Amino acid sequence: MTDKTGGPLQCPHCGKVVSKFRNPYPTVDIIIRLMSRPEPDNVVLIKRLNPPYGWALPGGFVDYGESVEQTAVREAKEETGLDIKITSLMGVFSAPGRDPRFHTITTVFSAIADGEPKAGDDAGEARIFIKETLPEDIAFDHRDVLNEYFGRLPETYKL
Amino acid sequence: MTDKTGGPLQCPHCGKVVSKFRNPYPTVDIIIRLMSRPEPDNVVLIKRLNPPYGWALPGGFVDYGESVEQTAVREAKEETGLDIKITSLMGVFSAPGRDPRFHTITTVFSAIADGEPKAGDDAGEARIFIKETLPEDIAFDHRDVLNEYFGRLPETYKL
Repeated sequence: MTDKTGGPLQCPHCGKVVSKFRNPYPTVDIIIRLMSRPEPDNVVLIKRLNPPYGWALPGGFVDYGESVEQTAVREAKEETGLDIKITSLMGVFSAPGRDPRFHTITTVFSAIADGEPKAGDDAGEARIFIKETLPEDIAFDHRDVLNEYFGRLPETYKL
Repeated sequence: MTDKTGGPLQCPHCGKVVSKFRNPYPTVDIIIRLMSRPEPDNVVLIKRLNPPYGWALPGGFVDYGESVEQTAVREAKEETGLDIKITSLMGVFSAPGRDPRFHTITTVFSAIADGEPKAGDDAGEARIFIKETLPEDIAFDHRDVLNEYFGRLPETYKL
């Protein structure tokens, strides 16, 4: 097991390697659609300032004592400045190799927001894309997540 | 933070309290419908041998390196002897108080299976219920989960 820096998980006091607390890390990612944009497939991605580099859905680790819905609202605000409204649970993505650092389990929500994104926190940039203009370098398994989202989009046009 | 026994989370080597690895624990629960039964709302519950006591959906902790779908198949087999086929993602339940021991985030799947359940592993008993015969003592937030499931059931009758 590795900690969040990629090394073996060590006790912060004695430095010994700890294998007892071997659980995947729960995370949340959010597919944000801006209601001010005419394209129904618009989505906000952020450019990561930390590895793995590239564009990614806004998201992050679930804090102890926080629900996944609270994480979604908090991370969207921190990374894009947007106040989101969750519209649906998109899926749970947990393949062990989906995050090159360690095993994470992400709960993905789709959401809507008004206004314009403004990069904050771990995001160097926040930009709006559509299906046809997705960037080449997308981190994690977020390209797969987005493809699954775009595939289901016709049924959510009414949102 | 507490470990899986309910005490403060301690390093197994030096015994000091560890707060660095403060993440909720990812778990999985499975709503198993037996195809051999005529009632479309039949569901397999297990009687827990460990606290919190009571009846509960089969389920357990996600191992490091395991997908949530793999956890569902493994735990269903261990606790009920059934080979399940996952039919849908029911939801993600993550309210901090849903588990009295510590903060868990559960991914709930609905699934179908043939044959009859046989209690194993942490399950003292495995029994089939329907909506009207649910037991009084249901652990965790599994009554809420089941109510949400029963509420959606008409649309999944065709499965």
